[in-house]
Amino acid sequence: MNQVIETILDHRSIRKFEDTALTEEQIKTIVQSAQAASTSSFVQAYSIIGVKDKQKKARLAELAGGQSHVAENGHFFIFCADLHRLQFISEKENQDFNVVLESTEKFMVAVIDATLAAQNAVIAAESMGLGAVYIGGLRNELSEVCELLKTPDLVLPIFGVAVGYPVHKPGQKQRLPLEHVYHEEEYEQNKDVYLAQLEQYDQDITEYYNKRTNGQRKDTWTGQMSGMMSQKARLYMKEFVESKGFNKR
Amino acid sequence: MNQVIETILDHRSIRKFEDTALTEEQIKTIVQSAQAASTSSFVQAYSIIGVKDKQKKARLAELAGGQSHVAENGHFFIFCADLHRLQFISEKENQDFNVVLESTEKFMVAVIDATLAAQNAVIAAESMGLGAVYIGGLRNELSEVCELLKTPDLVLPIFGVAVGYPVHKPGQKQRLPLEHVYHEEEYEQNKDVYLAQLEQYDQDITEYYNKRTNGQRKDTWTGQMSGMMSQKARLYMKEFVESKGFNKR
Repeated sequence: MNQVIETILDHRSIRKFEDTALTEEQIKTIVQSAQAASTSSFVQAYSIIGVKDKQKKARLAELAGGQSHVAENGHFFIFCADLHRLQFISEKENQDFNVVLESTEKFMVAVIDATLAAQNAVIAAESMGLGAVYIGGLRNELSEVCELLKTPDLVLPIFGVAVGYPVHKPGQKQRLPLEHVYHEEEYEQNKDVYLAQLEQYDQDITEYYNKRTNGQRKDTWTGQMSGMMSQKARLYMKEFVESKGFNKR
Repeated sequence: MNQVIETILDHRSIRKFEDTALTEEQIKTIVQSAQAASTSSFVQAYSIIGVKDKQKKARLAELAGGQSHVAENGHFFIFCADLHRLQFISEKENQDFNVVLESTEKFMVAVIDATLAAQNAVIAAESMGLGAVYIGGLRNELSEVCELLKTPDLVLPIFGVAVGYPVHKPGQKQRLPLEHVYHEEEYEQNKDVYLAQLEQYDQDITEYYNKRTNGQRKDTWTGQMSGMMSQKARLYMKEFVESKGFNKR
């Protein structure tokens, strides 16, 4: 196994960081790594906003549902789907490309581009001895996040990434069985196979929590997922992304 | 610079592969690397379909607009946004979570999860001496792709990744200026700064093509982007993803 795959397989989300700011050199390497990712038709439909300001980070931590690691870290990156750049070009050239910019296809392109860049950033950071965690909680109240970051229309913060020196090394949670996620030639159609895989996984996850909490926590993955779905979170999203010019047609 | 960052920065899309199939061990390592990526609330809202069958790959190559490297490679992976698994759990528990599963938020979660996994897969492949290229062209005719792969509702192939031993090493295209993509504290508001960065980039790209083609190709990035936007590609996407149960509310 090479160093790259070791880094990838050793990933765990870090939620407690030393109070040491990243250097400009580290930030630059992380952003360059992000930019090296593939991008659909070379469109580079994303932007990254780096936040150091303590007050701003504290506010973002609140908006993300009170996650202290959003305020306390070495650097906070926000990854944005960005079609504003294309709109800027259209305006400069007196062209109206709204039918394209407002399409669900281009919304997907921008979300995908931003995410490819982000994962490169995270792997790069981890290879430098840093830890990272994605903050989907930024999507709790995107309207306030956009205001805080002064993003124009057609720029949508999709998640944050907190980076810094880790002060803990949490255990890794076992993923779904490989054969449940990876299908050959076509999607698995057999419901019995599908169900058996999920049941096996539930057992594995139950054992994991049982060990980690000395029998205190009884939990299955399917149970966690039901709980998550019953929360009905962020149902304002459709209207919000449309109000920013995305995903309208 | 460590080996991981070297691998990331050395990325280029490979569009011509040796006729050597990946081993099962290589495929497993790539999928395990994909699975190691972060996932929103541990939901793992993606699936990967691996295609070896030559006829199927040839058909996918056609559907992707005649890209021969979709047919000729060491292995073809298709990354899918997948909420079917959650729906399966809901049905098993006699619960109706449609309002959540059909939300734009969960559509984003699934697209993001699939993309995080894919970028890990690509970096892992590249670290093993393999090359890769994303195939967004799969989104040209998703209805036929879904039929070919027998994907149920709430599974959406979002792109392919062709992997194999590279037979060329293309040059790297210079990305947008770092300071244009990376903003500090808030999104760059100054239109003059924004425009100057794009103009500088256009000059760089023009020089790149000029050198590479001995003056034959005159091109700017903003010109390429205008051309891309005028194509009005894949405008069926909104209706299609909704028909699969995504992004409806």
